[in-house]
Amino acid sequence: MSSGDAWGTHALRMRRVRDRLHESRLDALLVGHLPNIRWLSGFTGSSAFLLVEPGSATLVTDFRYRTQVDEELADGISVTIAESDLFGAVARCLEDGGTGPRVGFEDHHLTIRDRRALGEACGAVMWEPAGRIVGDLRSAKDDEEIEAISRAVRVAETALSEVEAQISEGVSESELAAELVYRLRLAGSASMPFDPIVASGPRSALPHAQPSERRMRVGDLLLLDFGARVDAYCSDMTRMFVLGPPAEWQVEIYSVVREAVRRATEAAAPGIAARDVDRAARTVIADAGFGERFGHGTGHGVGIEVHEQPSVNARSRETLQAGNVVTIEPAVYLPGRGGVRLENMVVIGDAGATVLNRFPLDLKQL
Amino acid sequence: MSSGDAWGTHALRMRRVRDRLHESRLDALLVGHLPNIRWLSGFTGSSAFLLVEPGSATLVTDFRYRTQVDEELADGISVTIAESDLFGAVARCLEDGGTGPRVGFEDHHLTIRDRRALGEACGAVMWEPAGRIVGDLRSAKDDEEIEAISRAVRVAETALSEVEAQISEGVSESELAAELVYRLRLAGSASMPFDPIVASGPRSALPHAQPSERRMRVGDLLLLDFGARVDAYCSDMTRMFVLGPPAEWQVEIYSVVREAVRRATEAAAPGIAARDVDRAARTVIADAGFGERFGHGTGHGVGIEVHEQPSVNARSRETLQAGNVVTIEPAVYLPGRGGVRLENMVVIGDAGATVLNRFPLDLKQL
Repeated sequence: MSSGDAWGTHALRMRRVRDRLHESRLDALLVGHLPNIRWLSGFTGSSAFLLVEPGSATLVTDFRYRTQVDEELADGISVTIAESDLFGAVARCLEDGGTGPRVGFEDHHLTIRDRRALGEACGAVMWEPAGRIVGDLRSAKDDEEIEAISRAVRVAETALSEVEAQISEGVSESELAAELVYRLRLAGSASMPFDPIVASGPRSALPHAQPSERRMRVGDLLLLDFGARVDAYCSDMTRMFVLGPPAEWQVEIYSVVREAVRRATEAAAPGIAARDVDRAARTVIADAGFGERFGHGTGHGVGIEVHEQPSVNARSRETLQAGNVVTIEPAVYLPGRGGVRLENMVVIGDAGATVLNRFPLDLKQL
Repeated sequence: MSSGDAWGTHALRMRRVRDRLHESRLDALLVGHLPNIRWLSGFTGSSAFLLVEPGSATLVTDFRYRTQVDEELADGISVTIAESDLFGAVARCLEDGGTGPRVGFEDHHLTIRDRRALGEACGAVMWEPAGRIVGDLRSAKDDEEIEAISRAVRVAETALSEVEAQISEGVSESELAAELVYRLRLAGSASMPFDPIVASGPRSALPHAQPSERRMRVGDLLLLDFGARVDAYCSDMTRMFVLGPPAEWQVEIYSVVREAVRRATEAAAPGIAARDVDRAARTVIADAGFGERFGHGTGHGVGIEVHEQPSVNARSRETLQAGNVVTIEPAVYLPGRGGVRLENMVVIGDAGATVLNRFPLDLKQL
C-alpha cells in the first residue's frame, strides 16, 4: 500500500488509536509490534517504534530504511533515523514532543529487556501496560482489508489448482512444498505467511508436520496447509487429497471434520462468543467419538498476521464482530494412521459468516 | 536432528547450561526462546517452554506436538502436554520438581505480559533475569554445527548457480525471487531463513528491499541476498550481478566494498573485538569517500537463527571466539542510483577466519 491511496485509511486508524488513548487516560502510545506499525503507518521494515501522540506521530527506525521509509510512510507521520539505538531516539522524541508523562506500551509484545532499556532511556516517563489497543482495532477489518485478504485466498487457490496435477505416487512432501511455494509466488504471493505444511500418509496425523522426504504412496491421505500474502494480508487454508480410493476410516473422519466445518461456519455471527463457534465444531467431533483426537482450537483471526485476534477456541473470551476474518479448521488426528484437517477462512458480516474460499471442500481422489 | 545421533550433543549442551546456572546461583532456568529450545532439546515446534533444573529437564508444549515431540526430543528430557495454558503447566512442573525458588528467565525474549502470567501462575518463585545464557553458549559452534552451516552455504550457492542463467533483460525481481526460493527448496533448504532480497537498478540502494515487479534493464546492478536452512542451521549470502558492461561508478563502489570484505575478513580472529572487524570494513569505505553510504553493521552471527550473537558493528561489545560463525557484509548505497553489498560467511578458527563461501566474489557481468 502506498501512502497516496491509503492516506485516509491510515489517518482514520490513527484517530481510533488516539480515541482509545484518551479513554485510557494515556498521553501517548509506543507501538513496537511490527504488524501494528505496518497497519498504522504503512512501514514494512524489520526494526522500528511508532510513537503516537495526541497531535503527532513519529516513526523511529534505523539507517537501513532511510530511503524506503519515504516511499512507504503515510502522510502526517514524521521519521527519525536513530543514530545508535532506537531507545535513545524514542526518548528524544518524547522530550521534544513535550508530551504528558503517561505513555502506554504493548505489554503483549515488549520484552522485559526492552522495557528496561526504555525505562533507562526515558527517565521521566510513567510507562503503562496498554494491552492490545492496536490488535483489538485490527481485528475488525474494513472493506479494503477484506478485499486484500480475498485476493490472498484467490492466490492460494490458484497455486493449489496448479500443484494438484503434480500430486502422484512417488512425489515427496518436500518436492510438493517447493512446487507450492513456487506457484504461490508466481501467482502473486510476495512472501509466505508461514512455511507450508505438506504431510502424507501417517504424517497427516501430525498437526504441525514439516515437509519431509517421504514419498506419496497409494492409499495415502495428503494434507496441504498453506497461505499467501498479498498487499500485506494473509490467507491460510487446508485441503486434503487421497491417492487412490479412500479407505473406510478415511471417509469416516473426513465426513466428521467436514460436518464440523459446516456447523462452526453456521454458528459464526456477530455477537456470538468465539468459544461457542469452537464448541459447535468440537461437539460434532466428540459426538462421533473422536473428541480426544482434536486437541487444538477451531480457528484464529487472519490479517496482516496469519495468527491474530480473535482466537476461536474453548478458552477464548472474545465475541465475534462484523469485520472479523477467522479460520475454521477442525481436525481429527489418528496417530500412526493419518489425520484430516479442513480449513476455510470466513468473514463475519451482519448476516453471519461468508466463506472466502471457493476451492471445493470434497475429499479429492487422485 | 533426531534424538539418536545427537544425544551426546544435547546432553553436553544441557550440562553447560547447568554450569552457568550454578555460577549464577540459579536453581533452574525457564527457556522460552524457540531457537534456544531447539538447540537444547531438538524440539522444532512453535509453542513451548523448556524447564532446566539441576537433575532434570522438562519440555512443556501443547496437544499439537504430542506425537512429534516423541520423534524429536533428545533423551533425558521429559514432556508435559499442557491441558490449557503453558504457564499453569510450568507452575506444576516447578512444584513437582521441588526445585529451589530462584528461577532464571530469558529477559531478552520474554514479554512483559508472559512474565506477568508466569508470576501469577508460579506464586512461590523468585524470578531472575538470566540474560543470554543459552545465546552466549550457542554463539560458539561445534564441528557438527559448522558442518550443517556449511551445507546450508552449499545449498544456497547451488541454487544461485541455477538461477544465474535466468537473470536477463525483462525478468522481474519477483520472478527471480520465486525461482531462487524454488531452487533453494529443491536443493535441500527445508524452509527459508528469511525472504530473499532481490533488488535491481536503483532499488539495489535499498538495504532491505522487497522483490517488486520491476523488470531488469541493461545497465542494472542486481543484488541477491538470501540463504538456506539445512538441519536447522542457516546460511546468508549476498552477491551482485550487472546486466551488460558496468558503469564506472558501479565498478568503483564494487571495488571499495570488495576491499572492505577482504580487510574485515583479515581482521577477524579469536580474541579480536567484533567492533574492530567492523572498523576494518568501515575504514576502507570511509577512506574512499563513502562513509555516509554505509549505515548498517558489518555482520552478525548465524546459526539456528539467521541473526544471532555475536553482532559485528561499531557498538558491539563482544569479542570473537573460535567457533563463531558471522557474516561479513559491508555495502555502499547511493540513493537513486544503486548500491553494492557483498556478503560472505566466515567461521572463526584458531588461525583466523575461514570463508565458507565458494561462489566467486567478482562482479559478474551477464
